[in-house]
Amino acid sequence: MNFKGRTVLVFVLLTMVASVLATLVLADRLVLGGLGSGKGLVSALPSGQSQGLTRQEESKLGAVLSLIETKYYKSVDREKVVDGAINGMISALGDPYSSYMEKETAEQFTESIEGSFTGIGAEVMIDNGNITVVSPIKDSPAERAGLMPKDVLVSVNGESLEGLQLNEAVAKIRGPKGTKAKLQIRRSGVAQPISLVLVREDIDVETVYAKMLEGGVGKIEIRQFSMHTGERFLSELEQLEKQGMKGLIIDVRNNPGGVLPVVVSIAQPFVPSGQPIVQVEEKSGTKEQTLSKGTGRKYPVAILINKGSASASEVLAGALKERAGAVVIGETSYGKGTVQVSYNKVLGDGSLVKMTIAKWLTPDGNWVHEKGIKPNVEVSPPDYYSAPRLSKTKVLTKDMLSEEVRSMQLMLGGLGYKVDRKDGYFSKDTETALRSFQTNQGLPVTGKLDRTSAEKLEQQLIEFVRDEDNDIQLIRAIEEVKGKIGH
Amino acid sequence: MNFKGRTVLVFVLLTMVASVLATLVLADRLVLGGLGSGKGLVSALPSGQSQGLTRQEESKLGAVLSLIETKYYKSVDREKVVDGAINGMISALGDPYSSYMEKETAEQFTESIEGSFTGIGAEVMIDNGNITVVSPIKDSPAERAGLMPKDVLVSVNGESLEGLQLNEAVAKIRGPKGTKAKLQIRRSGVAQPISLVLVREDIDVETVYAKMLEGGVGKIEIRQFSMHTGERFLSELEQLEKQGMKGLIIDVRNNPGGVLPVVVSIAQPFVPSGQPIVQVEEKSGTKEQTLSKGTGRKYPVAILINKGSASASEVLAGALKERAGAVVIGETSYGKGTVQVSYNKVLGDGSLVKMTIAKWLTPDGNWVHEKGIKPNVEVSPPDYYSAPRLSKTKVLTKDMLSEEVRSMQLMLGGLGYKVDRKDGYFSKDTETALRSFQTNQGLPVTGKLDRTSAEKLEQQLIEFVRDEDNDIQLIRAIEEVKGKIGH
Repeated sequence: MNFKGRTVLVFVLLTMVASVLATLVLADRLVLGGLGSGKGLVSALPSGQSQGLTRQEESKLGAVLSLIETKYYKSVDREKVVDGAINGMISALGDPYSSYMEKETAEQFTESIEGSFTGIGAEVMIDNGNITVVSPIKDSPAERAGLMPKDVLVSVNGESLEGLQLNEAVAKIRGPKGTKAKLQIRRSGVAQPISLVLVREDIDVETVYAKMLEGGVGKIEIRQFSMHTGERFLSELEQLEKQGMKGLIIDVRNNPGGVLPVVVSIAQPFVPSGQPIVQVEEKSGTKEQTLSKGTGRKYPVAILINKGSASASEVLAGALKERAGAVVIGETSYGKGTVQVSYNKVLGDGSLVKMTIAKWLTPDGNWVHEKGIKPNVEVSPPDYYSAPRLSKTKVLTKDMLSEEVRSMQLMLGGLGYKVDRKDGYFSKDTETALRSFQTNQGLPVTGKLDRTSAEKLEQQLIEFVRDEDNDIQLIRAIEEVKGKIGH
Repeated sequence: MNFKGRTVLVFVLLTMVASVLATLVLADRLVLGGLGSGKGLVSALPSGQSQGLTRQEESKLGAVLSLIETKYYKSVDREKVVDGAINGMISALGDPYSSYMEKETAEQFTESIEGSFTGIGAEVMIDNGNITVVSPIKDSPAERAGLMPKDVLVSVNGESLEGLQLNEAVAKIRGPKGTKAKLQIRRSGVAQPISLVLVREDIDVETVYAKMLEGGVGKIEIRQFSMHTGERFLSELEQLEKQGMKGLIIDVRNNPGGVLPVVVSIAQPFVPSGQPIVQVEEKSGTKEQTLSKGTGRKYPVAILINKGSASASEVLAGALKERAGAVVIGETSYGKGTVQVSYNKVLGDGSLVKMTIAKWLTPDGNWVHEKGIKPNVEVSPPDYYSAPRLSKTKVLTKDMLSEEVRSMQLMLGGLGYKVDRKDGYFSKDTETALRSFQTNQGLPVTGKLDRTSAEKLEQQLIEFVRDEDNDIQLIRAIEEVKGKIGH
């Protein structure tokens, strides 16, 4: 089970990325590898003993814990209070990228960094309120059991999935390796529900999607920089080059980041040997450059970014822009210029601390933190990308005003219907546009947005957005690359 | 310097109370006094030694602190990190009324509970962006130096107050006892700025305002239950009774609470001897009743509450409603049914922990937490109480829609102008109402809300709200009390 970036994107129609997702990690065991000589990054790890607290600090923390245990008006879970203390220490740093994770969250984080998890291997989304299969992952239990696109998952091991949020449903479908997931599914054209029993196994999340577009322009989309993303990228790149690719577009829109050595390995082929890919600056001010061992490429390269491109994505964009002559297209990126290490061994109980240990700078020494990387060619996303979903609980009619009316106006506008305002006031013109939409879709022409019209409107917009031919940022990137082929 | 509840209320036109303000405190040194026998509340305080932390907990907290000191990419203030740990432990309780305060905040909190502070003794507000004197407190440095209502404070000790928020300005005006505040003031009708030098001293904040209304109905407003509030209330009550009061209204609207023994002393005269005023229930489930030693009163009593009446205000309303036959008028109260103790001695460095140690219940055993006290007579505040202030940075014109338009509509409606909608859409009718307002005020009749019109509108509404004759909750309370006089 996984979410393909684009599907989720399209579905929620929002391009924001939560800051907690923006990661650039040097995992604990990676400290000795990757990133140049690793100097400084290896220096004395804390021993795990309480050398950290002075007697006075111990005494104060102990007094508060005693107060809580003896005086508070409810019983308390002591472990939660101690976890609270650690959370509090980390949040006192005021750094949104440093965090403490207790065991369970730590496991999810590690899975996400590793780009693999245990499950059944189907990408799902919510469609009309149903948990619906987008596609089974190749050679996964889901594929082998015959799960098909558009199948609706009704229940797992007897637990209904009805009315659940996507992440709640996914939590029920996932489980430890070797355990069984008994699925009830509904398939269009089949009257009776179908039962399937799948055994969960390790699933690698696909993070790289490559494609040859017409005119010899290759496109590689990177959704996240997980452990295996580097190898996957290099293999797809080789494939495209073998097919005679004349220009390349790398798409890191909404890519929140990942592992630093992985992005370095991806930048390497494009940056000529001896040139810096990234610089890392520690508290002491010492800067350490990671130099390329690559050869550079002769064909033109473009990189697509947006405000959801963070961290490792920005490392890549910075390196390709400054040292590989790539053109950067889209919106200014997220702006996250720090490197984290996840420390799990020192805590000894499965929990971990992810801590910011350095800034990273572009080859030219720019710190993009809270600024982001500016594209060479600015292409904003269409306004309907920012339309929140319709709630469908209330019929929208003329003269109303609300956020929902605004969403409807943005969606109608996105589909080419003329609306005079997109500020949430249901004007006469808005009504006319809605009537045209209803006419074209064969719906009752009421000029009111009821549940049926709202669902149709969303569905049409989703189809529209999914179609690459409507991706104005990609279209511009293709133009740019084509314009440079052969020059 | 203090804020009179009503002035601040009127000015911001909002009646919300922040949960951090809602207090019901048994201060550390009060533990042995007040509230019945104090059983349980006295039981073993933690000794201040680190008995609280196990070795494993010490080791984990120490490891994280070491990581922060050795690995984090910036230098850190160790004290802040330890404070963070304590904040984290307390917030793990999930109780908004338990909190840790470092030294400076602890002092402010203590001042607020004691109802006194050191300053110059002038009530100020923001008027047209200026820090303006509402009135000097009787026998304060401000009064003796001749500070007058409507004086604008320009600077303090050379520091300009221009453009500051009210609390920022107050922080500059306040200061330790015996220090000098050199004020530059602007007085209407005086061309040159006036300089005054005041010596700051201890100022008691007035928390009780009493008044005899026509028809022998007394009104006592309690703004907060501070240390001296009990004596002040009883003395005002005695005065009114001497004047032959026939009925009493106690107004605790927007009163966030205060000290439990104080509210008990205020309820006492009205609750007949031997009847419970409040019950306190600890973690163990033991309930302790505080019984009245009063005699009760023969005249009718009403108590005015709103959603800003919290904690001690709810203790009073509960006791008077259930055991003194009082009628409760207004809105359902805030709903805060817990008791806090502030522990400062155990921490030994001026910081304190305020912790919820018990629930309190009404005499009949009702726990009002997150429910509030329902009035016998429900009177909602007029809708313009919820109108946010106008920003005045943008001229509002027909066909616009925004929160500001909504504010304007609420304000116009409050002043008696007919508007067809109050949802933020600047309709034709809204324009007509605005034109009438502009005509009546001698302003240019544009139908557009520019800065001048906006300031006039706010000013008119503030005057309207300040006038007791427009206080519909009070008017209803007077009717109720009058209806019962002599029965």
